[in-house]
Amino acid sequence: MLNFVNDYCEAAHPDILRRITQTNMEQLPGYGSDHYCDEAKAKIRQVCDAPDADVRFLVGGTQTNQTVIDTITPPWAGVVASTSGHVNVHEAGAIEFSGHKVLTIPSHEGKMDAKELDAFCADFYADGNHTHMVFPGCVYISQSTEYGTLYTKAELEAIAAAAHKYDIPLFLDGARLGYALAAEGNDLTLQDIARITDVFSIGGTKVGALFGEAIVFTKGNTPSHLTTQIKQHGALLAKGWLLGLQFDTLFTDGLYTHIAANADMQASRIRAALKDKGYRLVFENTTNQTFVVMDGPTVDRLGKDVKFDFVTKYDDAHTIMRICTSWATTDEHVDRLLELL
Amino acid sequence: MLNFVNDYCEAAHPDILRRITQTNMEQLPGYGSDHYCDEAKAKIRQVCDAPDADVRFLVGGTQTNQTVIDTITPPWAGVVASTSGHVNVHEAGAIEFSGHKVLTIPSHEGKMDAKELDAFCADFYADGNHTHMVFPGCVYISQSTEYGTLYTKAELEAIAAAAHKYDIPLFLDGARLGYALAAEGNDLTLQDIARITDVFSIGGTKVGALFGEAIVFTKGNTPSHLTTQIKQHGALLAKGWLLGLQFDTLFTDGLYTHIAANADMQASRIRAALKDKGYRLVFENTTNQTFVVMDGPTVDRLGKDVKFDFVTKYDDAHTIMRICTSWATTDEHVDRLLELL
Amino acid sequence: MLNFVNDYCEAAHPDILRRITQTNMEQLPGYGSDHYCDEAKAKIRQVCDAPDADVRFLVGGTQTNQTVIDTITPPWAGVVASTSGHVNVHEAGAIEFSGHKVLTIPSHEGKMDAKELDAFCADFYADGNHTHMVFPGCVYISQSTEYGTLYTKAELEAIAAAAHKYDIPLFLDGARLGYALAAEGNDLTLQDIARITDVFSIGGTKVGALFGEAIVFTKGNTPSHLTTQIKQHGALLAKGWLLGLQFDTLFTDGLYTHIAANADMQASRIRAALKDKGYRLVFENTTNQTFVVMDGPTVDRLGKDVKFDFVTKYDDAHTIMRICTSWATTDEHVDRLLELL
Amino acid sequence: MLNFVNDYCEAAHPDILRRITQTNMEQLPGYGSDHYCDEAKAKIRQVCDAPDADVRFLVGGTQTNQTVIDTITPPWAGVVASTSGHVNVHEAGAIEFSGHKVLTIPSHEGKMDAKELDAFCADFYADGNHTHMVFPGCVYISQSTEYGTLYTKAELEAIAAAAHKYDIPLFLDGARLGYALAAEGNDLTLQDIARITDVFSIGGTKVGALFGEAIVFTKGNTPSHLTTQIKQHGALLAKGWLLGLQFDTLFTDGLYTHIAANADMQASRIRAALKDKGYRLVFENTTNQTFVVMDGPTVDRLGKDVKFDFVTKYDDAHTIMRICTSWATTDEHVDRLLELL
Repeated sequence: MLNFVNDYCEAAHPDILRRITQTNMEQLPGYGSDHYCDEAKAKIRQVCDAPDADVRFLVGGTQTNQTVIDTITPPWAGVVASTSGHVNVHEAGAIEFSGHKVLTIPSHEGKMDAKELDAFCADFYADGNHTHMVFPGCVYISQSTEYGTLYTKAELEAIAAAAHKYDIPLFLDGARLGYALAAEGNDLTLQDIARITDVFSIGGTKVGALFGEAIVFTKGNTPSHLTTQIKQHGALLAKGWLLGLQFDTLFTDGLYTHIAANADMQASRIRAALKDKGYRLVFENTTNQTFVVMDGPTVDRLGKDVKFDFVTKYDDAHTIMRICTSWATTDEHVDRLLELL
Repeated sequence: MLNFVNDYCEAAHPDILRRITQTNMEQLPGYGSDHYCDEAKAKIRQVCDAPDADVRFLVGGTQTNQTVIDTITPPWAGVVASTSGHVNVHEAGAIEFSGHKVLTIPSHEGKMDAKELDAFCADFYADGNHTHMVFPGCVYISQSTEYGTLYTKAELEAIAAAAHKYDIPLFLDGARLGYALAAEGNDLTLQDIARITDVFSIGGTKVGALFGEAIVFTKGNTPSHLTTQIKQHGALLAKGWLLGLQFDTLFTDGLYTHIAANADMQASRIRAALKDKGYRLVFENTTNQTFVVMDGPTVDRLGKDVKFDFVTKYDDAHTIMRICTSWATTDEHVDRLLELL
Repeated sequence: MLNFVNDYCEAAHPDILRRITQTNMEQLPGYGSDHYCDEAKAKIRQVCDAPDADVRFLVGGTQTNQTVIDTITPPWAGVVASTSGHVNVHEAGAIEFSGHKVLTIPSHEGKMDAKELDAFCADFYADGNHTHMVFPGCVYISQSTEYGTLYTKAELEAIAAAAHKYDIPLFLDGARLGYALAAEGNDLTLQDIARITDVFSIGGTKVGALFGEAIVFTKGNTPSHLTTQIKQHGALLAKGWLLGLQFDTLFTDGLYTHIAANADMQASRIRAALKDKGYRLVFENTTNQTFVVMDGPTVDRLGKDVKFDFVTKYDDAHTIMRICTSWATTDEHVDRLLELL
Repeated sequence: MLNFVNDYCEAAHPDILRRITQTNMEQLPGYGSDHYCDEAKAKIRQVCDAPDADVRFLVGGTQTNQTVIDTITPPWAGVVASTSGHVNVHEAGAIEFSGHKVLTIPSHEGKMDAKELDAFCADFYADGNHTHMVFPGCVYISQSTEYGTLYTKAELEAIAAAAHKYDIPLFLDGARLGYALAAEGNDLTLQDIARITDVFSIGGTKVGALFGEAIVFTKGNTPSHLTTQIKQHGALLAKGWLLGLQFDTLFTDGLYTHIAANADMQASRIRAALKDKGYRLVFENTTNQTFVVMDGPTVDRLGKDVKFDFVTKYDDAHTIMRICTSWATTDEHVDRLLELL
């Protein structure tokens, strides 16, 4: 059975397991105070050209979004996200569990529009009753987005400018940042992202790690008592060095973008084949997720040999399916898929 | 200066103050365990023809919505409301403060559509990822709505049926229920509402009381340990009898609907005059709130003598203003307003 | 039946009802933005000799404690209180509902000891694991305490010094502040309290008002966006002027302390009689609450004619009862009680 | 440098890394829906002789305690723990973050007393004001305790009986359960624990795993919608099979208790040597933690070669140090320590 259902169905890049195995019996201090974490942080600061950045490591994506948003957003405020944002749809209310509202603006192929963000904030402050409303307290976007689309540098700068105009920080969820950085047509580097955003995450879970997300507070703007707040959220890993080791490996010799590039390349092969065969793609995108319209018989036929992710009904006769590649997708996996399409 | 800015700018119907004054030095047990509360509850049960109903009294509207929704909605679930719902817009995140997401569906002149509610829930359960999403845990509507519009009996029954189809309770926020009950064209009685909904509130603050909202758990379906949960929300009034006395008064000899009818009648006079003079009304409605489009010069001219509530911009040259009457609005107030229009 | 069960079993001082009645039909802006609130605030600032103080009005005591503590305590911190503190025992978890732990130190007749507070904080910071612990984020005391005892000026200054040594604010819950201010032997004025504490409340509910607590941020140190946070806690009263009117009345011509003095005086009469008759008092105190040890037959005998508050078992044969006077207690009430003792 | 500072300073038992490496590229479904989790669950059910048990896997200890307690405790209730309980002291307020109070009773060498638990609950319900208080909603204990001590079977049964008398569940935190099961004098088996408690955890982080805690709902009493609630707490691991694989390994051929026994044995050697040399042990215990009184010069001398955990001051001249062994402690480590003592 071929499996294109998501980008986290294998464990980890072999280099990562090798290093965990090599260092297995080394006695290390807990909670991220070890030298592997220090080294990983230094490498991330360097590749981001952000010497003042503070880097932290958490285990999972929802945990990261919950912890970052709760610690950067004041109690009277919420997080502005597009309606399709992961925090608005697929985190089981983790943001509201921490007391914050998700304030939504329209999603355009997964992205928010800087002008609409600006208008949302302007309208908020213009409303005579706004002291009875949830203030915009931070902005959440993801790169790549839920739909595999990308913000351009100009778009990201415009969103940051809109957020900063209202004195609120911009948080970029990089659960799939590797696939964004490596994508054809992408014009945003890690340095750009570190310069433009206030905080962003670098996803490991979906890009070669067993688990783990690095959080980069780009300007040394770490929330107060962050370690204690992480613990309070149940998010402090005892053997923190496991995160440091993994990110140190991913950020050695460009492994992170190197393995991400494979996923994007394999997805491009799939998209080219789909177009050739007359399938309709839902989005024009270049990262590792491909959203395609399939009719029922096709879904049934392919379903015998391939696992896709069912996204939603398109119309009575069609559904939208997601085909997901990853750092672990091989030429052979894709060859076999292309034969079946 | 004429004041039509809201329906809570006078203190209380004189009968209420008279009773508080008469009973002032009576020594009473606290927290709603007094005989005035008992009598008020009995009257509400009777007028609702709901002998099994449990009635509680809280001080304010946001407090009531927060407490009801938090205590009837399970922790993994949110409240479904229309985008214009008070809980979604004007409660400063009180619902999220208690850990619940507000799940929004479209607002049609302030109302939700039963079919859209049904589709929302159906789509939720059909989504293969719904265990990662916030479950619909209760439904919130208001009568009259934020825009002064009314649900018909058929509409309310359809919404209740949709909610109950997914085993979730229907909560009707009656902050302005008096004005709904007394409105021309309304076909819903308190008995209907008690029969159809699972819990509803009867607003006192905006309909003749100093303050106070009665909550009616219509089928004896009181959340467990409700008194303790009310206390935990900071919402338990020490001198609870002040609430009992007020609702006892409002539900004696039909005072509640009698004084509400005045507000609706005065609003009808205003609407008729506005139409006569060529103003455009935003909604066709019959309750105490009138939403009207005014151009800038008119807003400025009237603003010298009358206070309205600015709602939002209509277009570059016009704004939507709200003209609000109440139990306390007099013929003379309206006469003077009509002269100015 | 005589009633000494608590200090909130009558409604309000007649002057308060008179003013509410007089102003009943005055049209006023909502949420505390009216001139009566302004006047009451000015009077409180003046009597506290605290020109920079910000004054806010809420409805109830638990609501006040929850809102103040939640808005002055950072998310990684808790509130330090004595084990007998109201927030630790009798608020149904309202503090924890808002996410904060109550950190307890010993209670000495209801009071905390400044040295123990200092040691608690010193031990906390000395603990190598304190980043995994709840930080002390504010200090909560009450005056008078749960047991009717009083802090002296020296004690209050020592507690403030201990709190400020660790950069945490001191909050004094004055639900019964009137009875403290008027008590024999009290050496603390409102000016002292405003000077020494960071925030304190002035209780109206138990001292002559229908309801209401004034919160004084003594140095203009109001938490950011406090109105929005109050709304979020469900604690913003629509007809806020009802609070302003009441506090304006209480702080006109010294009514607040004048009526409180009556309660203390009546309690002194009761304590003198109890001692005369050989009852054992649990505490040596001078405010409106008297805690007395009674044997079972006495409890039964008096229970036919008088309502007391049962506090706790003292031993197998005795219980501790609370006898509570108030602003409304009359000479005649006490005369009749003394005959029965 | 010798390291006895804690029991989580090495990564994982080699068998665990071997299995993760062997299965690295196997494509597996996420969130714990894989066959390794199923197999691990089956093994745990079998070793517990609890065919109806539901087993779940989370990453960390505080996360586990927060999630279990929040999902088994009703909103109006708190968790009863001893003052020294991990949830009361070392979880940075994670329990309160989820809205629940920790209700404390005395700690006796880390343990609660069943009679004191019973009395606490009895006093609660006897208190006439208990509706204004936080209800006891579950009981939290740990085995072994924070101080390495053990509950006997009789003690555990008495605590369970006390909890069940008041209809509240008993939760046993087994972060160090392996070291308890393997300890000399322990009379509690996994079957006993599964029979007596309502829910317990089996700690992997401190007993051979990279990370991971198994939660056993012993009677099929899983909280409703638990997966969604786990996700909401930010605690759902994407690659859940990493937890299944580890627990499957630990519960194959008795690895879990086998490696735990080593830690206990090495600790016994250390305790024997300490006694020989005249050190004072703080507790008589048989698990992997040893608490010993040392004078300043000894602390300084040993500190050159060995890392211990500083616990607290004992008196002006002495401190209490913790010496911790683990599954990874070797004979050689202990030999070298014994020479230094």
